[in-house]
Formats: sequence, structure tokens, C-alpha cells
Amino acid sequence: MRNGQTIFFKQPPLITHWASVAGRREGRGPLGRQFDTVCPQTSMGSPFWEHAETLYQQTCYQLLQQKSGLADSDLQALFAGDLQAQCTASSYHARTCHVPYLGQYGACSTMAQALGLAAVFCSAGFATHTAALTSSHFCAAERQFRLPLLYGGQRTPTAQWTVTAAGGCIVSRTGSGIQLSAVTFGSVLDYGVTDVNNMGAAMAPAAAHTLLSYLKDSGTQPADYDLIYTGDLGAVGSSLFLRILEEEGCPLYHHQDCGLLIYNRNQEKEVAAGGSGAGCSAAVLAADILPKLESGILHRVLLICTGALMSTTRVQQKESIPSIAHLVFLCRP
Amino acid sequence: MRNGQTIFFKQPPLITHWASVAGRREGRGPLGRQFDTVCPQTSMGSPFWEHAETLYQQTCYQLLQQKSGLADSDLQALFAGDLQAQCTASSYHARTCHVPYLGQYGACSTMAQALGLAAVFCSAGFATHTAALTSSHFCAAERQFRLPLLYGGQRTPTAQWTVTAAGGCIVSRTGSGIQLSAVTFGSVLDYGVTDVNNMGAAMAPAAAHTLLSYLKDSGTQPADYDLIYTGDLGAVGSSLFLRILEEEGCPLYHHQDCGLLIYNRNQEKEVAAGGSGAGCSAAVLAADILPKLESGILHRVLLICTGALMSTTRVQQKESIPSIAHLVFLCRP
Repeated sequence: MRNGQTIFFKQPPLITHWASVAGRREGRGPLGRQFDTVCPQTSMGSPFWEHAETLYQQTCYQLLQQKSGLADSDLQALFAGDLQAQCTASSYHARTCHVPYLGQYGACSTMAQALGLAAVFCSAGFATHTAALTSSHFCAAERQFRLPLLYGGQRTPTAQWTVTAAGGCIVSRTGSGIQLSAVTFGSVLDYGVTDVNNMGAAMAPAAAHTLLSYLKDSGTQPADYDLIYTGDLGAVGSSLFLRILEEEGCPLYHHQDCGLLIYNRNQEKEVAAGGSGAGCSAAVLAADILPKLESGILHRVLLICTGALMSTTRVQQKESIPSIAHLVFLCRP
Repeated sequence: MRNGQTIFFKQPPLITHWASVAGRREGRGPLGRQFDTVCPQTSMGSPFWEHAETLYQQTCYQLLQQKSGLADSDLQALFAGDLQAQCTASSYHARTCHVPYLGQYGACSTMAQALGLAAVFCSAGFATHTAALTSSHFCAAERQFRLPLLYGGQRTPTAQWTVTAAGGCIVSRTGSGIQLSAVTFGSVLDYGVTDVNNMGAAMAPAAAHTLLSYLKDSGTQPADYDLIYTGDLGAVGSSLFLRILEEEGCPLYHHQDCGLLIYNRNQEKEVAAGGSGAGCSAAVLAADILPKLESGILHRVLLICTGALMSTTRVQQKESIPSIAHLVFLCRP
């Protein structure tokens, strides 16, 4: 059923299994012990960062299959995405599994987009089991978006650090797990931010807009949820997000940001304003949010994944950064 | 309803309107008079090719709105994609329309992926009206994937020419138009082709695999369709595709390839093995296939859009080219 911008699932699909694979720096962070696997080598033993990221996805996908007991032939769709040009981390992983593959691009918002699509397929009866999987890799992203690593460029305080991680979920039509009860797919906003070292500022309005749309469509208040998570607004974006919501008459008291949860920012100064990347919210979801829903620490959660949709080419052409945010409502049955 | 890899829609969604915007060279081709708009300037007056491609999408989307009378607020989802890194042709267009946006990446297969998703949303009742829209631009793609244009590099006979065009469809739950009765989302295949100047060879097995899956799932034969179109296999890929199908005991007698339909290859030697790009099958669909279905020249058509999922980075790392193909069954009611 649809109301406004939001799809409400009458028979909510379930997130039955989840997995996360994180890099060394992420393993040192507050969630270090909660990831299924922490890889001591960021390179995964590959000579290429791009290939290493594919191996993160592959490891995560294998964990999902082990946990769920589902084979390739049991899955009717794989929704996956990443930040590499032409989404190659995902497509090079997808060639190793014989599952219908739909490549998604929503930058760091991709996990919510993939989860939402997986839920649509399951709820409509077009799939019994699907997988949603995203990743990012610091070194692959630096090569893609910024400067050669060896250049050792200084980072501004508003910059965010691309998380090296993959996170994935099995979304099924039936079974037991966490309900994916609603999804709000966002539209693209652009408030004219041109600083690629301040993506939080670019994404904050999109996150606020999607949340306000969802609250209106569902007729609920922030207090109806135990926690509202944003994907990776970081420190700067989070405070802007909260300010916008306050100005709109909708103050948030239970907000956390995946980009702030994943690193010890006091100890790891390099991460500046916090984590980002398509793997950030996916890994935090699998390592922290879903387990808390499973154990009953949390009951009703909104996850708003945010994406900055620029490319280096368009930014070099002096373009501003379009942003998007997709929201999923997760609920302990 | 699902059978095997294929989704069959009990109440098929309808492609109610379509539009195409083509470049100068495409305008000189056999379909020149059938495009809604032929742009005399490949640059669309922009200093940047990437921005020009966004303007192609924008023009196409405006045509769709004019033809359908639908406003942004009437559309519940925009599924769009292109070949630029981080899909910026689409996201920079999407910021100009206030429609929930789901960025798709399937390289040149993106149009079938977008159409299939649009149909899933409409059939499931999660949307009344959606848009599926893809584009490609020769100059933006050359900068992305190959050599600087001014370098004037020679092309091999197996190379394909990226089509400068955008094509789009309105897919609706009800109304009148062409039925989108089934979709087969493909899985990724990689037969080890490493030559980026021979994408047809890389994509042909994926096209054959998806078609064979669909025929098995539907219990039909090629003779049950008036025409079977492939997206952009070009001359080399098409002959390989036909040979694979013959070896599999499934010879095709009614096959056409969008990449071969769009140019006069005898007059335009530069296009070598034919057209390619996410805009190729989209523009041919809107300019040729759908009008023929509407006027009754064709009744039952399969469109198999094919995509080569590599990036320059992965190819420079000596990787082979993973490929995919998605199929839609289009039917005159």
C-alpha cells in the first residue's frame, strides 16, 4: 500500500539473516567485536584495491549463505551497489554467483535502496528470498574520488573517511527475523554545496526531507521510534540535520549516525567528521542495529541512508552535489 | 507470479507513453525521422559532454510529461541510469524533478532493468505511474572509457559506437498502451573476453542465456514472437548470439539488434560493428519498437538489453568483462 511517498507493506518482508565484513581500522572501532569478520589486510591479499572490495562483498555474501543455508539457486534477486565507477565491486562479485543481479547506484544511500527493492519484490510475491549487499573501500574510493594515497593529502575537519566494509542482508517473504515494514524512496535535492570535503552538509537536507515525508505519510512522530539512524552524515551533517528538523518543528532526541558509530573519533583523528561510504550504513546495520532489534534492546527503528550523487568529473566542472536519502522502517515482530 | 528466473505479470502494467531524443549522427540513420527530437548540437549548447547528456535526459523526460500529461507529483518512481561514473547523467537530471529516484546501473542493459522494475512496482500496486529513462552520449562515454576525442584514435572493426541519445517510457498500472507482460532479470556471465573493443563478444553469451531461461520459464518458442530484439550486440555479437542459440538447438529467424538498426553502417564507417550505450536500446524502443507495436505491425516482441559491466580501472588491471542481459516481453493488448 502506498501513501504519499511511502510504501507500507501489508505483509512485511523479513530480514532473516545479516552479515558484515570490516577492515582493520573499522575493527579497531567501537563496533569492532560485533562484525562477523575483521580483515587484518585491507588489500585482502589482492594487488588491486578495487578487487579487494569485491572480495569484501564475496566474503559477506558467503557468510549470508552460511548463516541462512540458502544456495544461489534459492535466491531470486541480488540488489547490490558500491561507489566504484560502473559499480564494479558489485558486478565483479555478481559474476561469481548465479543469481539475477540488479546493480543499484545511490552512492552511500545504496543499502536502503537495495533493502527497499528487495522488500518490494518479496512483498509482491515476485521473490521468496533476495539479498541486498553493498560495500565501500577507503583506498578504492580515494583513487576514485580524490588524490593518490601516497600523495598524503591533508584532510579538512569536515571531510569524511570512506569505510572499508561490506554489509548484507537476506530479505525473505516468510520466515522469522526483523520486519521491513515500510520504505520511503527519496527524491534528489541539491542545495548548492560544492565542497566534496563536506558531503555531510550536502546530504543533511535530503535526510531531513525524506524523514519528514515518512512521518507525514505514516502519521507518526519521532517519539514513536526507539532510535532514528542516519547513514553517514558524520558530525557536520548530523548537526545540520538536527537543526533543520528543529526548524521544521520536529526535534529529534533519539538520533544516531552510522558514520559516527563506526570509529573512535578521539583516537583516530584521520577520520575527521566520521565514516562514509556505501558499506558504512550496511555494516553498522548488520553489526549493531539488527542484532539490537533481534535481542529486544530496540523495537522500532528508522534507518535513513544518505547519498552524495556527484562524480569527480562533474565536481571538476564546478557542479554542486546532488543528494538523496532513502528510509526503511525496521520493526521487531 | 514467478516461474524460474522470470516474473509473469497477471495484470500486466502498460507502457502508455514513450519518447526519444537523438544526436545528429543518429538523426542521419535509418530511424532519423522516427525520433521525437534530433538535436543538431551534440553538446546541447553546454561546455561539458556530461552535462549535455543530462540535457538529453531532461528533454526526453519533458517530452514524456507533455505526451502523458503527468506532472512530477503524478509519478511515484523514476528508474534511470547511464554509463557515466556514478551515473551522474541521471542523478543530475533527477535533481530537476521531484520524483523518488532509484539510480540503476546495468551498463547498456539498464533500460530493460529500469522497465522491469517499473513494471514490478506498478503490478504490485506500489505505484500508479512510473518513468524508466536511460541515456548515453558518445563524447561523455569516450572520455569515460577510452581516449581523448582529439587524439583521433583508430577503431577496430569489432568496436562499437556509443549512441548519443536518451529514451524513456511511462509505465502505468492502468490505462492504454503496450503490455509489459513478463521480465527476466539476468545473472552475470563472464567468458573471459578482455578486449573492450569487442563488447559484442563479451555480451552475446549473456543475451543467449537470458533468452533461453525465458523460453524455458514461459514454455514458448522463438516462433511465438514476431521479433526478438537484442539491445546492442552489434554485428559481431549478433552473429555470435545467433550461433550460440543454434548450437543450443534454438535457431532464431526473426532477430534484430538495436545497435544495427540505429546507423547506416555502409555510410558511417566510423561506427564499425554498430551502436551501443544505455541510450541505444532505449531510443530504438521508443522510436521504432513501441510505435510498431502500437500500429499493429508487431504484436509480440521480446527485447533483450545487454550490458558489459567493466570499468576502465578494472580493464587496465587486466580483468575480463562481466556481462548481463535483462529481457522484457512486450505485447499489443
